Amino acid sequence: MKGARIIVQKYGGTSVADTERIKNVARRIAESRERGDHVVVVISALGDTTDRLIKLAHSISERPREREMDMLLATGEQVSVALLSMAMHELGYEAISFTGAQVGIVTDSSHTKAKILDVKVGRILEELDKGSVVIVAGFQGVSLDDQITTLGRGGSDTTAVALAAALGAGVCEIYTDVDGVYTADPRLVPEARKLPRVTYEEMLEMAATGARVLQLRSVEFARNYGVVIHVRSSFSGEEGTWIVGDEERMEKAIISGVTHDVSEAKVTIFDVPDRPGVAAGLFQALAAENINVDMIIQNVSEDQKTAISFTVSKEDLRKAEEITRKMAEKLQAGGVSVDQSIAKVSLVGAGMRTHPGVAADMFAALAESGINIEMISTSTIKISCVIRAEDAKKAVRAIHKKFGLERGVVMRA
Amino acid sequence: MKGARIIVQKYGGTSVADTERIKNVARRIAESRERGDHVVVVISALGDTTDRLIKLAHSISERPREREMDMLLATGEQVSVALLSMAMHELGYEAISFTGAQVGIVTDSSHTKAKILDVKVGRILEELDKGSVVIVAGFQGVSLDDQITTLGRGGSDTTAVALAAALGAGVCEIYTDVDGVYTADPRLVPEARKLPRVTYEEMLEMAATGARVLQLRSVEFARNYGVVIHVRSSFSGEEGTWIVGDEERMEKAIISGVTHDVSEAKVTIFDVPDRPGVAAGLFQALAAENINVDMIIQNVSEDQKTAISFTVSKEDLRKAEEITRKMAEKLQAGGVSVDQSIAKVSLVGAGMRTHPGVAADMFAALAESGINIEMISTSTIKISCVIRAEDAKKAVRAIHKKFGLERGVVMRA
Repeated sequence: MKGARIIVQKYGGTSVADTERIKNVARRIAESRERGDHVVVVISALGDTTDRLIKLAHSISERPREREMDMLLATGEQVSVALLSMAMHELGYEAISFTGAQVGIVTDSSHTKAKILDVKVGRILEELDKGSVVIVAGFQGVSLDDQITTLGRGGSDTTAVALAAALGAGVCEIYTDVDGVYTADPRLVPEARKLPRVTYEEMLEMAATGARVLQLRSVEFARNYGVVIHVRSSFSGEEGTWIVGDEERMEKAIISGVTHDVSEAKVTIFDVPDRPGVAAGLFQALAAENINVDMIIQNVSEDQKTAISFTVSKEDLRKAEEITRKMAEKLQAGGVSVDQSIAKVSLVGAGMRTHPGVAADMFAALAESGINIEMISTSTIKISCVIRAEDAKKAVRAIHKKFGLERGVVMRA
Repeated sequence: MKGARIIVQKYGGTSVADTERIKNVARRIAESRERGDHVVVVISALGDTTDRLIKLAHSISERPREREMDMLLATGEQVSVALLSMAMHELGYEAISFTGAQVGIVTDSSHTKAKILDVKVGRILEELDKGSVVIVAGFQGVSLDDQITTLGRGGSDTTAVALAAALGAGVCEIYTDVDGVYTADPRLVPEARKLPRVTYEEMLEMAATGARVLQLRSVEFARNYGVVIHVRSSFSGEEGTWIVGDEERMEKAIISGVTHDVSEAKVTIFDVPDRPGVAAGLFQALAAENINVDMIIQNVSEDQKTAISFTVSKEDLRKAEEITRKMAEKLQAGGVSVDQSIAKVSLVGAGMRTHPGVAADMFAALAESGINIEMISTSTIKISCVIRAEDAKKAVRAIHKKFGLERGVVMRA
């Protein structure tokens, strides 16, 4: 490889929405080649292809089997890689496209949400060595028994990070339609600031609490294998946000940002007999149906009765409610209520660990804006509050202001 | 396999043009399952998918590389097989879809026109044994160095016949939008008759001279491996046309049908010095550019000068003309002319071998209609004449009538 650096670049669906944008992406890749780097490119399906294929499947079957969904959806990325490769040739560069199966992105057999087990890089290295740009279909892999699998929404991020890890790439550049990670969603907080660097832990919390910029699993993968990610815009040449290990982060900011999420709903089961095993029974039943529960709170017991509230994604709400109602009947609980008008606002920052006053300041910001807190959940570097959905914008702004995030880095003591 | 018969069914693009038609195809397959047969299904891409993908490629590159075209086009069939499998599940039948690569349709590396080298049937037999309908993407395969290949237009027919041969299937049913092979194109000759049986040799000649119902290579494959083909309509339950070996054909008809083809053009090189090696040089140059020459005639020599005419597909005409003009210059020939307004009408029948009067009757039919013959070419079971394109319809009708093809089987002496 003559000492040249390998970089992995990932371009999302909006970056390859039509053939003009594909040509733009080809030009960006050409610039990287001109700098002398070996380039491995991961791309998603064109624009709304995946949604179109899902609609097609649903016109045939309400609940198509997941193996066949993977067979169907994997075609989206295969189309993009072939077209991007043609665009590179058109610019006079050597390039070759591959499916996930062809480059050996080996996954488990969990169709539609497969996990990467292994990446065989032999074929990629061979092509890089010939001077080719290697273009790999994101989002897809192949199971050990030679079935086509997909990695779930946003899976192309994970493909890119896994390839960067396996290839020992200097950086994994994630090109997207925003130009980095912000202290808050700029559509809600115009004075939000782009963060030059965040740690893996912070990015994980931000992704988990509503920042849509990266798939959660890709960040976990990057953290586990020490892959440096650079999130940046495919429409400008500016630096974006670097996602790095804690030790490489120099600024030592207490707070990285405020996130929000309105995609969850709250389920409450009332007047539950307060005896051991009740919560366990409920959450085991939910887990058995593959329902991801986010926050859980249980009220102080009165008269041997208690109430349990939890949040789930709105997509899972119907199933979660059904299970909870069955459980309520079995336990002779008072009833079940469902609330879809909630928002979760979260404050994330690695410096929080050593600053006990942060939670109090956040609650004060909400109180000063007259916003009631319904649920609270904390980790060492995050505080989340569930509030009314209509208060979300006001809450994010108030917290952003309280911590002076628009002014730049808040230094650790 | 408990003694059950294996049948291979192939459905073309018009049979799976939309999701409603896919559901229809699923119902037909279900009927075969209900009769107790093991079913392997080969399908093409949905309706105009292939044309749409080609257009997409051309919006990026005028001459995309063939390897990337195969990568792109193979997605069309992958979409169809997944959808058809879902439709089978919806009807309550076990079914599983596979790409060409997954079932081991191994080809050479000639991208966009690959030839099948081997078919590995292990995975298919395993699934049939479980009671599943196996749905295989037509038109595609995988080369020995793990590249995705395609077999060229109509390649799904060849996939189906190759699978039938490898599986020792009782029959390969080709479902299409016509209900069999006719004595002439029914759009030209309303009284044309559906043939109950034709031999491989006859079908080869008919396919080569303009009958569009089957890909030529699939018939060759069927003949070489003794695969019985049944061409029939996907929109009715009627018997179609059986394509069988000569020994299995009982009717002993002299003539099978009249075909026509307006897709060719004629190139003539005039006043060529009449010395050995001239024709060889020209046709070697054309072959080197992969141009398929159909008919060739050379005039009687006058004054040591001759004229050579040949026909090629209109697609190859530009290239063929260029090569011929270069050759004309080199040979100091008089000039080159091109004629795109020709038609070829052909009469095909295995009984012709023993009936020397057939050619004379055909020429008489044309003469009686005032049609001039420009070129003639014969094989043991076929006579082709090149005439003016505008005379094609009249010629086909006249020949059809002359041999009484509308009246049923013309028995051999």
